[in-house]
Amino acid sequence: MIVTLLSDFGPSSPYPAAMKAVLVRRTSPTLVDISHDVPRHDIRAGAFVLYSAVPHFPAGTVHLAVVDPGVGTERKPLVVVSGGQLFVGPDNGLLMPAARRLGSPTVHTMTDPMILRPGVSSTFHGRDIFAPAAALLLEGTPPEAIALATAEFVDLDFGSGRTINGGVAGQVIYVDPFGNLVTNVPNGLWVEHRGPVAIQVGARRGSGRSARTYGEVSPNRLAVVGGSDGLLEIAVREGSAARRFAAAAGMAVRIRRVTRP
Amino acid sequence: MIVTLLSDFGPSSPYPAAMKAVLVRRTSPTLVDISHDVPRHDIRAGAFVLYSAVPHFPAGTVHLAVVDPGVGTERKPLVVVSGGQLFVGPDNGLLMPAARRLGSPTVHTMTDPMILRPGVSSTFHGRDIFAPAAALLLEGTPPEAIALATAEFVDLDFGSGRTINGGVAGQVIYVDPFGNLVTNVPNGLWVEHRGPVAIQVGARRGSGRSARTYGEVSPNRLAVVGGSDGLLEIAVREGSAARRFAAAAGMAVRIRRVTRP
Amino acid sequence: MIVTLLSDFGPSSPYPAAMKAVLVRRTSPTLVDISHDVPRHDIRAGAFVLYSAVPHFPAGTVHLAVVDPGVGTERKPLVVVSGGQLFVGPDNGLLMPAARRLGSPTVHTMTDPMILRPGVSSTFHGRDIFAPAAALLLEGTPPEAIALATAEFVDLDFGSGRTINGGVAGQVIYVDPFGNLVTNVPNGLWVEHRGPVAIQVGARRGSGRSARTYGEVSPNRLAVVGGSDGLLEIAVREGSAARRFAAAAGMAVRIRRVTRP
Repeated sequence: MIVTLLSDFGPSSPYPAAMKAVLVRRTSPTLVDISHDVPRHDIRAGAFVLYSAVPHFPAGTVHLAVVDPGVGTERKPLVVVSGGQLFVGPDNGLLMPAARRLGSPTVHTMTDPMILRPGVSSTFHGRDIFAPAAALLLEGTPPEAIALATAEFVDLDFGSGRTINGGVAGQVIYVDPFGNLVTNVPNGLWVEHRGPVAIQVGARRGSGRSARTYGEVSPNRLAVVGGSDGLLEIAVREGSAARRFAAAAGMAVRIRRVTRP
Repeated sequence: MIVTLLSDFGPSSPYPAAMKAVLVRRTSPTLVDISHDVPRHDIRAGAFVLYSAVPHFPAGTVHLAVVDPGVGTERKPLVVVSGGQLFVGPDNGLLMPAARRLGSPTVHTMTDPMILRPGVSSTFHGRDIFAPAAALLLEGTPPEAIALATAEFVDLDFGSGRTINGGVAGQVIYVDPFGNLVTNVPNGLWVEHRGPVAIQVGARRGSGRSARTYGEVSPNRLAVVGGSDGLLEIAVREGSAARRFAAAAGMAVRIRRVTRP
Repeated sequence: MIVTLLSDFGPSSPYPAAMKAVLVRRTSPTLVDISHDVPRHDIRAGAFVLYSAVPHFPAGTVHLAVVDPGVGTERKPLVVVSGGQLFVGPDNGLLMPAARRLGSPTVHTMTDPMILRPGVSSTFHGRDIFAPAAALLLEGTPPEAIALATAEFVDLDFGSGRTINGGVAGQVIYVDPFGNLVTNVPNGLWVEHRGPVAIQVGARRGSGRSARTYGEVSPNRLAVVGGSDGLLEIAVREGSAARRFAAAAGMAVRIRRVTRP
């Protein structure tokens, strides 16, 4: 019985521990923090971190994810089921890329008795709504007992890159803490090729190398590498591709092979 | 069997893991980190983080808390019992607000055989005194077997705000990592009211809105919100109230309703 | 059944959670994070953090450590056994100081079936090679079943300080997050002495006090203290010795008693 936690509460915050207190009151799950250091209110970054972490967890894992700028407003609390794993969190798109990565998600909106219990804080649904729901799921309560299937929810989709003449195009979906740019271009679209490439991110251009791993390029050189989540990454070895390109999530990316005559 | 850990050792430090090693040598507790990112030597901040996290843990939980600028000096190691939960840490006030939140604390000073064991480091009582004591408590050793009840200990009390003409007054007891100001004014003292307010923190003044949740105010606007620990908070939506008021823990706070004629 | 994790992936990264997913798929170990905040690619710092954490863990503990700038290159994956504990990680020296601290290490190179499994990422061996190996060890698979004993591996040794006329000499092996300098001089070489000392780190000199604990020196004063890992430390109370001396790992250190006539 495994429960993961993801939030933007910050590493010095007591709030992840308060959620864990609720989880361990009645059950003894294995607690796995995914991260509590998601940039504050950055739903897309949280969605990517969750997307990256979930595929290796076993069926039955419950993911409790709270990046929730709309806490206390009309946004709904969700239970999402996909590929045998369960997700609990706000209806703002946060859960959807991860859930879709595991299969075909079914989305449920939590019913009023879960949400309107007495003593629910208007600022900390992580502790007062999402964690109690996750604890019920860990105890074996079926999602249908606390939530109603719905077709209306806020979606978030990273899209998918495509092939273009001489290369691939897509966008940056995540900038990791080291400045590596994760794109939405599947590794498989990029004909495995070790050699020089031209890279464009937003309005800036650079020259680099396509490589199998970071160790193959020289320090401070740009590299295009097939990332461990199945998506092409742009990196600067021992440096920051985000700084090199002034890059941010959402920017357009083009990568082309350079063939010399 | 649950044990929480709190310290100011920092997220890159090996010291929390050394304490956990001692805890898991003979028992198999559920380990819950509250935070190891308390500002260094900041006993008040550590006390608040502990205070915030404890109420939802079940009876029997052992809290191991180490923010201990006096390590190796004459300050005493304590075992505190309150509301069925147990606290182990230094006698510098760190444990007291959390313990008092759970009930009427009984305070014990650890006895010499715990403290004077051979091999005890003079700089790392977390590993060599507090964690072994916590492990004994997790094994079911009664506090009285390792510590003597005492009426002499260092206390720390956040005090309690009060009503004033047209509003409430108190002080900042914690500045969270996002710059939100947690006050010592109970939510219940503030007549639930959605509307304009005048806020003073230290010598600075600002205008804001009393709201049920952050989502109700506009970005960059000041909000007064009933916080999830039962205490009024002052926040700037998508900004920092600490920066707006140059605020720090201990500063006086006044909040008044603004009524237009 | 205990498994620790150490990496330089950073606290906001999903990668530690991906490794944990692999660990908890088939077994239910107690997960203990040592740190995921090792400075990126800093093998020496990672080696010290691991060295500091391991001695209190029980026999059978598996340590999964990944600071791996050579991921995807020809560097080998290792299983190291020492003092009844097991280590899994890259062959770059990271594991050796910790393993040697526990006894006489036997080093094994993982065999091809572990390394060449289908689907192994070229950039994330932590998830795809090291974590599966750690999971097998946790299940009781003997190291010899997945790795071959070898005498060829990359070593890393912090060396050992020595006595000199009137004091001790050695080098800085770790700068902790607070700017304390951990040296390779065993506490036992420094005749316990409370009094004035002259300290040299690299080319800079300072005056301080030898003390039993930080609390004995005045704020902002230099102190030489016997550290909790058995190694002398140089600290500035409520300040940073690293800044005072512009110090970094590898710099030479001399500490001499100052005796007044």
